[in-house]
Amino acid sequence: MIILGVDPGYAIMGWGIIEKVGSKTRPIAYGSIETDKDLPMPARLKHLYSSLADVIAEYEPEEASIEQLYFQNNAKTAIFVGEARGVAVLACVNAGLKIYEYTPMEIKTSVCGYGHADKRQIQEMVKTIFGFEEIIKPDDTSDALAAALCHSYQGEIKKQNFEMK
Amino acid sequence: MIILGVDPGYAIMGWGIIEKVGSKTRPIAYGSIETDKDLPMPARLKHLYSSLADVIAEYEPEEASIEQLYFQNNAKTAIFVGEARGVAVLACVNAGLKIYEYTPMEIKTSVCGYGHADKRQIQEMVKTIFGFEEIIKPDDTSDALAAALCHSYQGEIKKQNFEMK
Repeated sequence: MIILGVDPGYAIMGWGIIEKVGSKTRPIAYGSIETDKDLPMPARLKHLYSSLADVIAEYEPEEASIEQLYFQNNAKTAIFVGEARGVAVLACVNAGLKIYEYTPMEIKTSVCGYGHADKRQIQEMVKTIFGFEEIIKPDDTSDALAAALCHSYQGEIKKQNFEMK
Repeated sequence: MIILGVDPGYAIMGWGIIEKVGSKTRPIAYGSIETDKDLPMPARLKHLYSSLADVIAEYEPEEASIEQLYFQNNAKTAIFVGEARGVAVLACVNAGLKIYEYTPMEIKTSVCGYGHADKRQIQEMVKTIFGFEEIIKPDDTSDALAAALCHSYQGEIKKQNFEMK
């Protein structure tokens, strides 16, 4: 099973592809899609969508794990992040992936054993679990790998309870 | 010049197609795309995107006028509305349309002469300007026609000042 993890954002969108075989996982590829802040938002959204679609076409994941966004305090920023998240979800659903959503707390609890873990702790755990020599930067990419890991751990439960919800 | 107006939303997305010839405008088509609240969000986003892409393919607008969303108080709702707005923008940009964005106040001022006009006043003005016999429902569709009208009035100024910003 190939899983795509996505940490949605409009300036930087992290992505990670992992493979799950039985109870084991291994990283296949990861990176981030960055958009030029001087570009208008429509062009940034187009770049995010087409770049993520390229990642999906190359690695052919079957399922996507996308971070849910609950904790935005600023409604204007929330609209922008929502726009970026919307095109990420669309890239996945248009490619036929099954989509699963996890809150930041679910991801942190699943990967770090602690729902209030900070960005650095997630980076360290992702490094340790996958046996990377260095932490993965930017943190958006580590977060995306963490989202994929969370789904590899929690997916069976999620599928029973919340499939496509 | 064919203009598409969009009032973005995830439950109902209004759209309106108008033609501008010189200083005159006429409505060509309008409607709303509704999504089933029992469907998961990815499926709702896919439906919004593909339905709006169908409208664009049928009427071949050259420019799109999309309402900007500034006044969301609820950050969770803002994320959802942002997701829907993101896929609407993407449908336009992927089809090669030039995209212009107007705040609700710009649209109301342009169409009603009054930045705090309510939904009913917009519906009445859209009816009067286009010579419809009845007000256009739902209000999302009237709002989309108002966005298109606003661009037909303001577009030249917008293009000089803010093109693709």
